[in-house]
Amino acid sequence: MSQTHDPQSFSADAIVIIGIGLIGGSIAAALKKRGFTGRIMGVGRNPSRLEAARRAGLIDEGTTDLTSAAARGSLLIFCTPVDLIVDGVCTAAKSCHDGTLITDAGSIKGGICQALAGKLPQRVTFIGSLPLAGSEKQGFEHADADLFDGRFCVVTPNQTTASDQMTRLRDFWQSLGCTVVELSAAEHDQALAQTSHVPHVVAAALASTVSASNRNLTASGFRDTTRIASGDPALWAAIMLSNADEIVGGLGSFSNGLKDLYNAISNQDATTLKNLLQHAKTNRDLLPDYEDR
Amino acid sequence: MSQTHDPQSFSADAIVIIGIGLIGGSIAAALKKRGFTGRIMGVGRNPSRLEAARRAGLIDEGTTDLTSAAARGSLLIFCTPVDLIVDGVCTAAKSCHDGTLITDAGSIKGGICQALAGKLPQRVTFIGSLPLAGSEKQGFEHADADLFDGRFCVVTPNQTTASDQMTRLRDFWQSLGCTVVELSAAEHDQALAQTSHVPHVVAAALASTVSASNRNLTASGFRDTTRIASGDPALWAAIMLSNADEIVGGLGSFSNGLKDLYNAISNQDATTLKNLLQHAKTNRDLLPDYEDR
Repeated sequence: MSQTHDPQSFSADAIVIIGIGLIGGSIAAALKKRGFTGRIMGVGRNPSRLEAARRAGLIDEGTTDLTSAAARGSLLIFCTPVDLIVDGVCTAAKSCHDGTLITDAGSIKGGICQALAGKLPQRVTFIGSLPLAGSEKQGFEHADADLFDGRFCVVTPNQTTASDQMTRLRDFWQSLGCTVVELSAAEHDQALAQTSHVPHVVAAALASTVSASNRNLTASGFRDTTRIASGDPALWAAIMLSNADEIVGGLGSFSNGLKDLYNAISNQDATTLKNLLQHAKTNRDLLPDYEDR
Repeated sequence: MSQTHDPQSFSADAIVIIGIGLIGGSIAAALKKRGFTGRIMGVGRNPSRLEAARRAGLIDEGTTDLTSAAARGSLLIFCTPVDLIVDGVCTAAKSCHDGTLITDAGSIKGGICQALAGKLPQRVTFIGSLPLAGSEKQGFEHADADLFDGRFCVVTPNQTTASDQMTRLRDFWQSLGCTVVELSAAEHDQALAQTSHVPHVVAAALASTVSASNRNLTASGFRDTTRIASGDPALWAAIMLSNADEIVGGLGSFSNGLKDLYNAISNQDATTLKNLLQHAKTNRDLLPDYEDR
């Protein structure tokens, strides 16, 4: 097992990234840029895409054979759609060597961690991860070696997680420039419903309202507010259905806030409306000041 | 009256910009950059801010005296908050010379045009304008000479508007790089409710939902979706209250779409959810492809 406490480097003989899209490709690019000296293997379903990612210099080799790749890595990172993670981890774990650490980059954690609890061989550790970085774009062509730099990464150990594997996972994300935050899987899902999943539902509803004749009358406000609605529908449907309870609760809170604004507008209540808008502005202006992407 | 059909230049002895903030400052900057040779006068309430704008090279002179400035310009552009436009135009019109064209850059038109109908002397023409460009930032320090380049600008003549003044207003916005679109004031307000005002209400509601402990768990999606909620509360409250009927209607349509998504999520209806997200994505991807700001 490779381990280091130097956040600038993470060492392992081989890292296996399953799913070489925007996130998987960006992890590979970030590892290369930051001097990772081990082998980066990519696993996917489409050989020609894997070969293209190899030619692009992101991975050292690509394969459609998860089992054989899993046997060669000491760290496996699942960057597939969330509904494929559990099956993938179970399949991979069968061929993993002793001490292998498996993580993911999926936007839900509760369902995944529950489904995997007690299912994996003792020699393998799974800890969930979510780097808080992304894009509405898809494909490794949009990979960005600096995508994770300066961002938070949530990791979700449980009470039985070995501390040396936690340290290793922390080192890994720190080596890509992340600040690591530990949460329980349930806390993660509650938080991400609020910060990511509900906003996606809202952006989708908003994007659907604009009529064809009004498209030219949008400006950067509408574009930004709806940007994430350009994300992949299948990928996001899987996330939303996996975190439905938290999202339903979050949409309730959002709708209550919207109703307050609606009432102030329809009642011509300038004082209340200004106060609500000021509260929103204050809250928005307190967001962490990382570089906009 | 100065008039030209060369979209690269607009000539006038003097242009008076009332309100030297982000929009007024950007109009001044765009005029300077595009070779406008006349005088640019700025009108505001704060002499030291006007002097700072003059030192920044945006305006040639600044004054707090709207009446005297209005007497010297052949084109007046009101870039004040929307609730100050009607009074300002009425005050300015009293001292305007024959043939003066007055416009604005406010995000509502119906209330303004109705309030001004029949109120202005014959020698003065008011036509509403809205350049579809902006920022959540405030102040001329954020002025951008290219803010209007490649953007649409709505103008709202009525049946009595003289065609030579319409041509002149069209030339003016084209000289800043805009494509000019004519709408009635009512059409403008309906469209802007959908493309700007409702998104602002939604972004404000969303910005208010994030708890202090979850702020660090936001990423670019949340930042973008809520960006416009950082806009000035007083300015936006005035816009919303002036276009309340259209916004209330637009929020109803938005809420219906949100309810469809909510139901699909709570019912674990993957097919419907994917279809709704695909519809949203398709609509978002069809937005005009101007440079993001």
